[in-house]
Amino acid sequence: MSKTDHFAALEKNAANYSALSPTSFLAWSGEVYPERVALVHGDLRQTWGETYRRCRQLASALDKRGIGPGDTVAIMAPNIPATYEMHFAPAMIGAVLNALNVRLDADTLAFMLEFGEAKMVMVDRAFAPVMSKAVAQLDSPPVIIDIDDPEYGGNEAAIGETDYESLVAEGDPDFAWRLPADEWDAISLNFTSGTTGNPKGVVYHHRGAYINAMTNAMAWDMPTHATYLWTLPMFHCNGWCFAWTLAAKAGTNVCLREVVVDPIINAMTTHGVTHYCGAPIVHSMLINADESKLAGIDQTVYGLVAGAAPPAAMIEGMERIGFRLTHVYGLTETYGPAALCAKHEAWDELTLDERVAKNGRQGVRYPTQAALTVIDRETGDEVPRDGETMGELVFAGNIVMKGYLKNETATAEAFADGWYHTGDLGMIQPDGYIKIADRAKDVIISGGENISSLEIESVLSRHPAIASSAVVARPDEKWGETPCAFIQLRDGQTATEDEIIAYCREKLAHFKCPKTVVFGPLPTTSTGKVQKFELRSSAEKL
Amino acid sequence: MSKTDHFAALEKNAANYSALSPTSFLAWSGEVYPERVALVHGDLRQTWGETYRRCRQLASALDKRGIGPGDTVAIMAPNIPATYEMHFAPAMIGAVLNALNVRLDADTLAFMLEFGEAKMVMVDRAFAPVMSKAVAQLDSPPVIIDIDDPEYGGNEAAIGETDYESLVAEGDPDFAWRLPADEWDAISLNFTSGTTGNPKGVVYHHRGAYINAMTNAMAWDMPTHATYLWTLPMFHCNGWCFAWTLAAKAGTNVCLREVVVDPIINAMTTHGVTHYCGAPIVHSMLINADESKLAGIDQTVYGLVAGAAPPAAMIEGMERIGFRLTHVYGLTETYGPAALCAKHEAWDELTLDERVAKNGRQGVRYPTQAALTVIDRETGDEVPRDGETMGELVFAGNIVMKGYLKNETATAEAFADGWYHTGDLGMIQPDGYIKIADRAKDVIISGGENISSLEIESVLSRHPAIASSAVVARPDEKWGETPCAFIQLRDGQTATEDEIIAYCREKLAHFKCPKTVVFGPLPTTSTGKVQKFELRSSAEKL
Repeated sequence: MSKTDHFAALEKNAANYSALSPTSFLAWSGEVYPERVALVHGDLRQTWGETYRRCRQLASALDKRGIGPGDTVAIMAPNIPATYEMHFAPAMIGAVLNALNVRLDADTLAFMLEFGEAKMVMVDRAFAPVMSKAVAQLDSPPVIIDIDDPEYGGNEAAIGETDYESLVAEGDPDFAWRLPADEWDAISLNFTSGTTGNPKGVVYHHRGAYINAMTNAMAWDMPTHATYLWTLPMFHCNGWCFAWTLAAKAGTNVCLREVVVDPIINAMTTHGVTHYCGAPIVHSMLINADESKLAGIDQTVYGLVAGAAPPAAMIEGMERIGFRLTHVYGLTETYGPAALCAKHEAWDELTLDERVAKNGRQGVRYPTQAALTVIDRETGDEVPRDGETMGELVFAGNIVMKGYLKNETATAEAFADGWYHTGDLGMIQPDGYIKIADRAKDVIISGGENISSLEIESVLSRHPAIASSAVVARPDEKWGETPCAFIQLRDGQTATEDEIIAYCREKLAHFKCPKTVVFGPLPTTSTGKVQKFELRSSAEKL
Repeated sequence: MSKTDHFAALEKNAANYSALSPTSFLAWSGEVYPERVALVHGDLRQTWGETYRRCRQLASALDKRGIGPGDTVAIMAPNIPATYEMHFAPAMIGAVLNALNVRLDADTLAFMLEFGEAKMVMVDRAFAPVMSKAVAQLDSPPVIIDIDDPEYGGNEAAIGETDYESLVAEGDPDFAWRLPADEWDAISLNFTSGTTGNPKGVVYHHRGAYINAMTNAMAWDMPTHATYLWTLPMFHCNGWCFAWTLAAKAGTNVCLREVVVDPIINAMTTHGVTHYCGAPIVHSMLINADESKLAGIDQTVYGLVAGAAPPAAMIEGMERIGFRLTHVYGLTETYGPAALCAKHEAWDELTLDERVAKNGRQGVRYPTQAALTVIDRETGDEVPRDGETMGELVFAGNIVMKGYLKNETATAEAFADGWYHTGDLGMIQPDGYIKIADRAKDVIISGGENISSLEIESVLSRHPAIASSAVVARPDEKWGETPCAFIQLRDGQTATEDEIIAYCREKLAHFKCPKTVVFGPLPTTSTGKVQKFELRSSAEKL
């Protein structure tokens, strides 16, 4: 036997190997900090001991109802304790959570329930009407369970077979739950919002959920017992895996039914919130809040922002109110954030504009992600680190989805050549940090030149009269395509097409400036993304 | 195809799966924080960029010399930059690091080099004489590489084929290193100190090293850019995996050739050290240091202690000097710490004695370890959580070694019934925290009663005349065994056997008190552990 064989001969066994699963974090907090508060919701203060016990009980109840490994259990609810518990209970018996976007319409929900083959769906009363319509379309509808949240102020009728608390009561709180047979087993199903066609079902596995949950805390230096406010929907990439992170750090989850500024500030003041995440709009709300309301927040608050680079006003605003903002980047396919704009102390010495330029980048891979780079879409080679050459952002590593459910073609395309292809275009700056220029399909090719619609939108966003804008390609006989800007003005503001074009010409190369400007409200998806495909279709008809 | 099959059909590929290895953390810090200082040693300030480059270069040099996957490379050196780099370079080509205890004698070293089949050994000049003697005993000696540390003040002659820097220079700094083929592959070999017989070769794998490196930071809330002082030997369980933790957090490693109090305090003052680890003796040194010297330490310093429960004087002393001490527990077989005495805010309100009792426990599993409990050695069942019923401490999970090299019997024994058996005896307290009573073989069975030698030693340690003590079983015709105390008095102090026994009778049940007391210095192993087997042999001859 060679020496190498002697090392290799030492095999895995029950004593030295166990599957990585974020369910283990709940067991840890439940056992070590049973008396600490895990969940705050209205008057509810639920400890980690109770949460662990209730999740085991719910896992047992699901098990008794015949739900098992690989079965899908869906939930349609805001950020309330039931949604949190559902991030553990199904996983504890190998079932798969499908957290549905509560803003979706009945047709889309029906598609998701059918495609995901959900055996059961938990429904908060607020969404009973839309869920009724969705389920009515299905040949084999899932079992419906009502969630009667005491903080729900409406009066929609129950539609379920029973309610959530009764279901929990069916189970055994001492249930012997189990780690997955294989850490590669599915833990959740998250549908992409999909700006065209049917949404794709992104599948997460236990291993990736575990690693990203730990990395969230690691990359953000989130301490033990952090108090986290649920401004980010749990149905959005499982709350970027923070549902599991909080269990790993024995933190406190402060629930929130709706993302409204006064309840956010009240929660921050009352519960000593230290951490929260969200799209730019969440942070903007806080910056624009009345200063007297913010005055009650004594602790340092840390925010993560993703979805778009934080503009100068946001970085400046967060500094003014004493919040610490970090920019992260990822997609549904990467469990939420899988990259962050890791800060450098030297940046503190820079001017605001310089800091904005540094902190606004998508940055670098999470320490646990194997790779993030930008490749030439023709050759597959990494582009030079010149901050100019554009290519596609690609990831590789353990924080990349298992694949798209029942979609071999899309899975194979996404994973071509050993990379996960994000569809985002950008460049690598000389320090190795990556900056997004645009979505691949949003690039405008005019006279052979690539024009970034984001770059134009960024210029437009600084115009005082413009509330929001979206730039798409308009077919052009001479140039192939030209930029067409759709602009929503601020209330009470006016502007003309010529003024806008002249303004852009001051800031951008002429070939990059919009040739057409259209004023009006912008169409958005259920997650607030602008529906560029609709605008492209409008631009074609102009 | 069933739904479950659709989830299972999504397979691993290069885009969504990579082996867990702590080498990836070096790449991260090297790429993201190339300009930050990774290593401080004398006048040396080596950045993460340089460290990553040098490790790739050394990996390439090893590769060129024919060292490959599963080959062992040893090092005999104190906590200097070369030892740190060796925690990465061999692993980057799949080779296995064997960091040797610098206090060992030539015969033991010869055994380890032969048993581990080391192909190369790096030797700090200070240890050239002992290594010469060791290597002279071998039929196939390894290639010897001298390490010429500028901070080494002696004048031992070189014994190697070449020196470390020349070896590094043989390599390509842009070498395309690789993750291990399998995360279960061996990364290091750590010999147990072994109080009897030949030391056993504990094998670590990349997966475990990665997980424990992350968990060290997680459990201790160690922030990004922590400054870590190397008071704990890197040859001791790879520095409890902290060599890899520091790379994951882009921290600064402050090296230290010798664990001497003035250099420790100087390093803490000069370099702003925030974290360090060590056996109780390291912390005692600091507590007993001149207050004026400690006055220069402005930052909060966090210490981890393992090896014995911190006594009242230590907890009180650390509080007095403003350090934060956490108690961890583990063995060579568990990558160093795999349990910690996780703190509760409520403990801050307790009296000193109560705090000592709480914080002195071995505690609970690391959040990433699957299990730590106490089992009845006969039935294998978990003992009741009564704080009284004694059993054996057992671990299970990913922070347990791959096994013992070339020792199937010991491996099978260690992993019997799906547990790693620590050989430590203890009980579970009602809050689930575990407290060690004794090593299995150190328990004294007198008149059918189990007596913990640790309990008696704990009482003796509070006697003002006693510097240190060790209690072992002495064969007795009537009782089977009786406790025999070996006592080393403080300088200038005196005590008699009768005084010591009378003192114990005030604090302990009579059957637990020593029947025999022997005064004199205590024999210790190379890692400072008392050699109880020698004392047992002395006690038999009394």
